[in-house]
Amino acid sequence: MSRRLFTSESVTEGHPDKIADQISDSILDALLKEDPKSRVAVETLITTGQVHVAGEVTTKGYADIPTIVRDRVLEIGYDSSKKGFDGASCGVSISIGSQSPDIAQGVDDAYEARVEGDEDELDRQGAGDQGLMFGYACDDTPELMPLPITLAHRLSKRLSEVRKNGTIPYLRPDGKTQVTIEYDGDRPVRLDTVVVSSQHAADIDLESLLAPDIREYVVEPELANLGIETEGYRLLVNPTGRFEIGGPMGDAGLTGRKIIIDTYGGMARHGGGAFSGKDPSKVDRSAAYAMRWVAKNIVAAGLARRCEVQVAYAIGKAEPVGLFVETFGTETLPVEKIQTAVTEVFDLRPAAIIRDLDLLRPIYTATAAYGHFGRDLPDFTWERTDRVDALKAALGR
Amino acid sequence: MSRRLFTSESVTEGHPDKIADQISDSILDALLKEDPKSRVAVETLITTGQVHVAGEVTTKGYADIPTIVRDRVLEIGYDSSKKGFDGASCGVSISIGSQSPDIAQGVDDAYEARVEGDEDELDRQGAGDQGLMFGYACDDTPELMPLPITLAHRLSKRLSEVRKNGTIPYLRPDGKTQVTIEYDGDRPVRLDTVVVSSQHAADIDLESLLAPDIREYVVEPELANLGIETEGYRLLVNPTGRFEIGGPMGDAGLTGRKIIIDTYGGMARHGGGAFSGKDPSKVDRSAAYAMRWVAKNIVAAGLARRCEVQVAYAIGKAEPVGLFVETFGTETLPVEKIQTAVTEVFDLRPAAIIRDLDLLRPIYTATAAYGHFGRDLPDFTWERTDRVDALKAALGR
Ligand SMILES: C[S@@+](CC[C@H](N)C(=O)[O-])C[C@H]1O[C@@H](n2cnc3c(N)ncnc32)[C@H](O)[C@@H]1O
Ligand SMILES: C[S@@+](CC[C@H](N)C(=O)[O-])C[C@H]1O[C@@H](n2cnc3c(N)ncnc32)[C@H](O)[C@@H]1O
Repeated sequence: MSRRLFTSESVTEGHPDKIADQISDSILDALLKEDPKSRVAVETLITTGQVHVAGEVTTKGYADIPTIVRDRVLEIGYDSSKKGFDGASCGVSISIGSQSPDIAQGVDDAYEARVEGDEDELDRQGAGDQGLMFGYACDDTPELMPLPITLAHRLSKRLSEVRKNGTIPYLRPDGKTQVTIEYDGDRPVRLDTVVVSSQHAADIDLESLLAPDIREYVVEPELANLGIETEGYRLLVNPTGRFEIGGPMGDAGLTGRKIIIDTYGGMARHGGGAFSGKDPSKVDRSAAYAMRWVAKNIVAAGLARRCEVQVAYAIGKAEPVGLFVETFGTETLPVEKIQTAVTEVFDLRPAAIIRDLDLLRPIYTATAAYGHFGRDLPDFTWERTDRVDALKAALGR
Repeated sequence: MSRRLFTSESVTEGHPDKIADQISDSILDALLKEDPKSRVAVETLITTGQVHVAGEVTTKGYADIPTIVRDRVLEIGYDSSKKGFDGASCGVSISIGSQSPDIAQGVDDAYEARVEGDEDELDRQGAGDQGLMFGYACDDTPELMPLPITLAHRLSKRLSEVRKNGTIPYLRPDGKTQVTIEYDGDRPVRLDTVVVSSQHAADIDLESLLAPDIREYVVEPELANLGIETEGYRLLVNPTGRFEIGGPMGDAGLTGRKIIIDTYGGMARHGGGAFSGKDPSKVDRSAAYAMRWVAKNIVAAGLARRCEVQVAYAIGKAEPVGLFVETFGTETLPVEKIQTAVTEVFDLRPAAIIRDLDLLRPIYTATAAYGHFGRDLPDFTWERTDRVDALKAALGR
C-alpha cells in the first residue's frame, strides 16, 4: 500500500467564523426553547466592533437577540477592546424577516401530499431545501471518526481550555490547529506535522515562551494513545511570527464558513450545506446528521471499515431523490445489499429524521464549535449506534 | 460493478449566496485592476433591501464600492422592488479595515526567509493562511469534470439565458438546479432526476406554463450528447408549488457559501476554504486552482482516469506541509510515481503558483457564478493542460 500525507484542520471557539456559528446557533436554541416548531435561518457577520444578524424566522417564541449575542461573545472570551473585541460594547444590528410563505408551503404541505394525494403523516413535511448531504464513519478511532480531524479538534479544545483555566494566561480566544498524518493505504501510521496558531497578549516572546508552552501544555498531552508513531513530528507554532491582532479584528467571520471543520476534516466528501443557525426542517442540517448516523451504524455493525453515504432531496418533497453508499472496498457484504438494508432500516423523510433523532430541542449551541460529529454527548443522538441490530437483521446476520 | 445514484446541484447568478460571491469578486477585481498587489479579503452579506460589505483590504488602489455593488446587482437582474430587490435603491454599508500587520508579515516575509535564512526569491512569500485544498479531474466529460455538476451548471446558465434573452420573460433571477445521475461503478450511465426551481413573476401557472416552458427551453436542449441514457428521467419543476418571493428577500446570502457548487459538485473532497473576495495570496483560492491544474494535467496525460490531489499549508510558510495524490485504482502507473512527478513538475509555493497561473489579474468576477472549474475561458489558466508533456517526461514516458 502507498504511504501518503493527509491533513485536517480545526479552529477554536474564538475564531471569527466560529463566533458567527455560535451566535447563530444560540439564537436558534433560544427560539426552539420557546417554540419547538420555530422556522429559523439566522446568518451572522462579525467584524471589527460589529455583529450583523440577518435571516428568516417564523416563530411563536421571542428571543432577545442583542443579549444573546453579547452573552455568547463574552463567554467565548472577547470582553475587552485590548483583545480586539468587546461583547459588552460592540454594535449589534439585526435584520430578520419571516420565512418566505412560498417556502413554508413546500415544507408544511409536501409534494407527496399536495400533488400526489398521499395521506401518510410522515409524507406531509417537505424538505426545506434541495441539496445533497454526506455522512461518514471509519475505524480510525473508537468514536469511528477520521484521526486527523479528531486530533485537530482535541488540540483546539485544549487551546481554549489552557487559556480559560489560566495554564497559559496570556493566550487569547482566536486560534487554529492543523494536523498532517501519514497513512499507509487507509490506515493512519505516523504523525508528520502539527501547526498551532494562537492569538496572544502583547509582548509575548514566541521562541522562549509561547512555542514551548504550546508544546508542553497543548500538543504533547494529546499525543499519547493515538495508536500511531508520534516520535519526531514537526511542530510549527505561530508561523507568521506574531498573532496579537485576532478575532473579528483580524478577519471577518461568517456563519457556515467552517463546514469541513464541522464535519470530517476533508476525509469525506461534502454536499456544501452549512449547519449553524438552521432549524432541522432544513435538510442541510438534519439529513447530514442522519447520514452520520447511518454511516456510523454501518461501520459499528461491522459491514464496512469505512463508509460514506450520500442522500439528496428536492425542496418541498419528503422522499429523497437519491441515495449512494460507498464502502471503498472495505465492505464485508456487497455494497448493494448494504444500501438496500439502509433503505429498509432508516426512514430518511425529513419528519422521520426529526422524530428519530429528536431534533426539535435546543441542543445546537454545543455543536457549533469543535465538531458536530464524533462527540459522545447525550444530546448528539446521531452518534448512537442503535440501529446496528436492525441492520444486521435486515442483512440476515 | 454496482449501480448507484449520485447527485450534484448548481444555482443561478441570482441566488443570494452567488450575488454575495459576485459582489466580493467584483470588488476584488476593481482593486487588482488598480493595484495588482492588493491584499483583499471581502465578505458580503445580502438580505432584504441591504448589502453589508466587510473585511480586510490593503491596497494602493481605490474602489467605489457602493457603485460596484449596485452595478453588479442590477446586471444580475435585481432592478425593481417588484422582483424583491432593487440594486439602484438598496442600502449599502461598508466596514473594511486593513490587513492585519501580523498576517502581512507572514505573507511578505515567509518562515523560510525569516527563520531559516533562505534566499530563494520564491521562498519569500508565505501562505496567507493555513489550510487544505483539493483538486479533481475525471474523464466523465471532455473538459475532464464530473458529469452531474457539469449538467447542473449548464441548466443554471440556461435558466439565466432564457430569462435575459426573453425566451421565458416571466422568469426572475433566483434559481437552483439539481441533477441525479446513475453511475455503473465510476461511469455515468443514466439520467435519473432533474430538479429546477426558478423564481417567477406573480400569477404564473406552474402546471400549464412554467413547468412545460422549463422542460422545453431549459432542460431538453441540454440533454443531447451527454453520452448517457436520458429517456424516462423524472423532472421536478418548482416542487414547493410557488417561488414568487426570491433572491435576498427569500433567503439571506453570504460570500463563500456555495463552495461545493464552485468546485466539483460533491464528487471530490473539499478543504473548506472559499474563493470569492480573496486575492491569490490566500492559498484557499490560489492553491485550490493549482490543485485543479495538477489533477487535470494528470488525467490529460493518461496517468489516471480519475484523480484527486490534496495540498496543505502552514500560514506564513512557503513550502506546503503535505501533498496527497489519489487515483482510485484508475492509474496507469503506481501512484507513488505520479506523486513524485507532481512534486518535480509543479512548484506549489504560493509565489510560484501566482506566477505560473498568472493570478494577479482582475479575472475573478467571471469565476463567481457557474463554477470555477471546467470552463474553457482564456483567463482560466488553471484549466490548461500545459504540463502534460513535463509529467510524461518526468515519468519516462
Ligand atoms: C489568516 S486569516 C485570513 C486572511 C485574512 N482575512 C486577511 O485579510 O489576511 C484566517 C485566520 O487565521 C488566524 N490568524 C489571524 N491572524 C493570524 C496571525 N497573525 N498568525 C496566525 N494566524 C492568524 C485567525 O484564526 C484568522 O481567523
Ligand atoms: C429554500 S432557501 C433556504 C431556506 C430559507 N433560508 C428559509 O428560511 O426557509 C434556499 C434557496 O432556495 C431557493 N428558493 C427560495 N424560495 C423558493 C421556493 N419558494 N421554491 C423553491 N426554491 C426556493 C432560493 O434559491 C434560495 O436561495
